[in-house]
Amino acid sequence: MNEIAVICGTNRNDSVSMEVSLLYKALLEELDQNVELIDLKRLPVDFAFSALYENSGKNEAFNTYRDLMVRLRKFVFVVPEYNGSFPGVLKTFIDGLKFPHTFTDKKCALVGVSSGVQGAGLALSHLTDIFNYCGMNVLALKPKLARIDKHLKDGQITNDLFNQLLRDQAQKFIEF
Amino acid sequence: MNEIAVICGTNRNDSVSMEVSLLYKALLEELDQNVELIDLKRLPVDFAFSALYENSGKNEAFNTYRDLMVRLRKFVFVVPEYNGSFPGVLKTFIDGLKFPHTFTDKKCALVGVSSGVQGAGLALSHLTDIFNYCGMNVLALKPKLARIDKHLKDGQITNDLFNQLLRDQAQKFIEF
Amino acid sequence: MNEIAVICGTNRNDSVSMEVSLLYKALLEELDQNVELIDLKRLPVDFAFSALYENSGKNEAFNTYRDLMVRLRKFVFVVPEYNGSFPGVLKTFIDGLKFPHTFTDKKCALVGVSSGVQGAGLALSHLTDIFNYCGMNVLALKPKLARIDKHLKDGQITNDLFNQLLRDQAQKFIEF
Amino acid sequence: MNEIAVICGTNRNDSVSMEVSLLYKALLEELDQNVELIDLKRLPVDFAFSALYENSGKNEAFNTYRDLMVRLRKFVFVVPEYNGSFPGVLKTFIDGLKFPHTFTDKKCALVGVSSGVQGAGLALSHLTDIFNYCGMNVLALKPKLARIDKHLKDGQITNDLFNQLLRDQAQKFIEF
Repeated sequence: MNEIAVICGTNRNDSVSMEVSLLYKALLEELDQNVELIDLKRLPVDFAFSALYENSGKNEAFNTYRDLMVRLRKFVFVVPEYNGSFPGVLKTFIDGLKFPHTFTDKKCALVGVSSGVQGAGLALSHLTDIFNYCGMNVLALKPKLARIDKHLKDGQITNDLFNQLLRDQAQKFIEF
Repeated sequence: MNEIAVICGTNRNDSVSMEVSLLYKALLEELDQNVELIDLKRLPVDFAFSALYENSGKNEAFNTYRDLMVRLRKFVFVVPEYNGSFPGVLKTFIDGLKFPHTFTDKKCALVGVSSGVQGAGLALSHLTDIFNYCGMNVLALKPKLARIDKHLKDGQITNDLFNQLLRDQAQKFIEF
Repeated sequence: MNEIAVICGTNRNDSVSMEVSLLYKALLEELDQNVELIDLKRLPVDFAFSALYENSGKNEAFNTYRDLMVRLRKFVFVVPEYNGSFPGVLKTFIDGLKFPHTFTDKKCALVGVSSGVQGAGLALSHLTDIFNYCGMNVLALKPKLARIDKHLKDGQITNDLFNQLLRDQAQKFIEF
Repeated sequence: MNEIAVICGTNRNDSVSMEVSLLYKALLEELDQNVELIDLKRLPVDFAFSALYENSGKNEAFNTYRDLMVRLRKFVFVVPEYNGSFPGVLKTFIDGLKFPHTFTDKKCALVGVSSGVQGAGLALSHLTDIFNYCGMNVLALKPKLARIDKHLKDGQITNDLFNQLLRDQAQKFIEF
């Protein structure tokens, strides 16, 4: 059985992205997948300085995530929209991973989340560029959950189209 | 007289981007501009956690930069290519700035730097999306300094085309 | 007085983009601008073959537009979303223009139009890349008129936010 | 056995892209693939008007290509860089295809070609956005053949890295 990482793409506390990440984890588990949840909030608070460049590989707490990312082969990124793209902390996390083999010939799926109307469309486009550059194939279907605040209640998505898109994506990703 | 910030887009030590930033500062000063250099390496090492979201505005050391960015109206970003886009730390810096007025109706110029052949082309495209989203006009001319290691010696750029592009950009940016 | 071209970015008959283009023309005229409307529907039907590459400059009917684009210095592009980007015919039009001087150091504003929820966001990002490559500055504010069918009646836009965005853009563009 | 279409992304006569397309066809055939070459130069010269929108499906000469694109499930696009992106005629071709099922759940690989130094990097990014929007998975590895004129002689690529990248891509695409 494949093991899939679901990565919540922000380090914000109590984020909507974490709610969606938990939902996605449950969805994959219903489909008999083994899921590892990665929460950027748990990264060492100084990792942008202590785990990159000449310090690459030297931060033990960060290395736990670094090794996990090397080992796993399928990733779902739940990506909120900050300033018209993805959170800087997500890219910093990527910048701290083992290069170039962390992503080469692996597979990922992207979910966009926004309080506004765009559903993180540009964020998903930018991330697709990055992951393709790193040699990772990105599933074409990338649900954009716009105005998420209106469509999430008690940890469940109340919008039928969103639920259908997420189920379709999860199913396609398992077969990808 | 306008004051222009030159922002080195990485927190890496001894970066080529800082060399280019210093060159750009000198270039603008030759053109009688007043320049402030912003070095992401000097940000508080935990700013991704202590200066964003519910902590927005609460980190005094970060606030120095936050206030400076609000006050200035023209920015030059020197942008290295990391993993096919700009450094995560640069976006995290942007994510920590005062929203939405830090960039609205202001102006910026972008310079791409890479050791590889692309000259950070996608990074500059992604940043243009972000800054336009934030309401900041981006100068069309964006030099892409590819294979920078071959073209930089003793703190000077040895490639005539690169020097011409930077001078053209600086001149256009002053008039922008 | 500046003369501004408003370019309807499709050759589709009876397009919503033409309705928006006519609205934009009226808006600019209210602001005392002289406006030229360019309608891609009027291009020679075989221009993709008879006016490009080795035939560049040889199609008299196309040359009328080619010369007009060289002469004018400010452009508003009204851009519908087709297949997740702008219409191919708009890019083919650009490919037939005089290179490289048609756009260098000129200015443009972009308006996105879609029947779906995205408002042609990616189309505007792609066009910004293209125009910046050609040396043309693009105004940061790019209204995205999503679900346009719900917001257009009898040639008028009924959505207050859309009207405000278009007026703001027109005003900023005149001063750009 | 899968049948793969190789699509030359321009209608220019005697294009370098066609040389690369023919090379790619031969490469796939060496790998025991059945290849169909699609040459946009053979499209009806007025197809941007006679085969789109209300004329969709009405141009018999265009329908040959339209039906072929529906039937095939794997596509290689050879994409030259025109004005910082892909040729307009390629997007117009896409705009004339049967929507939305031509590309859904299919697979493609992209090759960039340029006389300049960028290797059509932004063109490939824009096309990836478009194909993902249409539901088609895009192979991450996208060779960018920059300064192609220096690396092509007598119909063969003389740059070892380029040849290796194309072989790697072809092999990965067959397994994709």
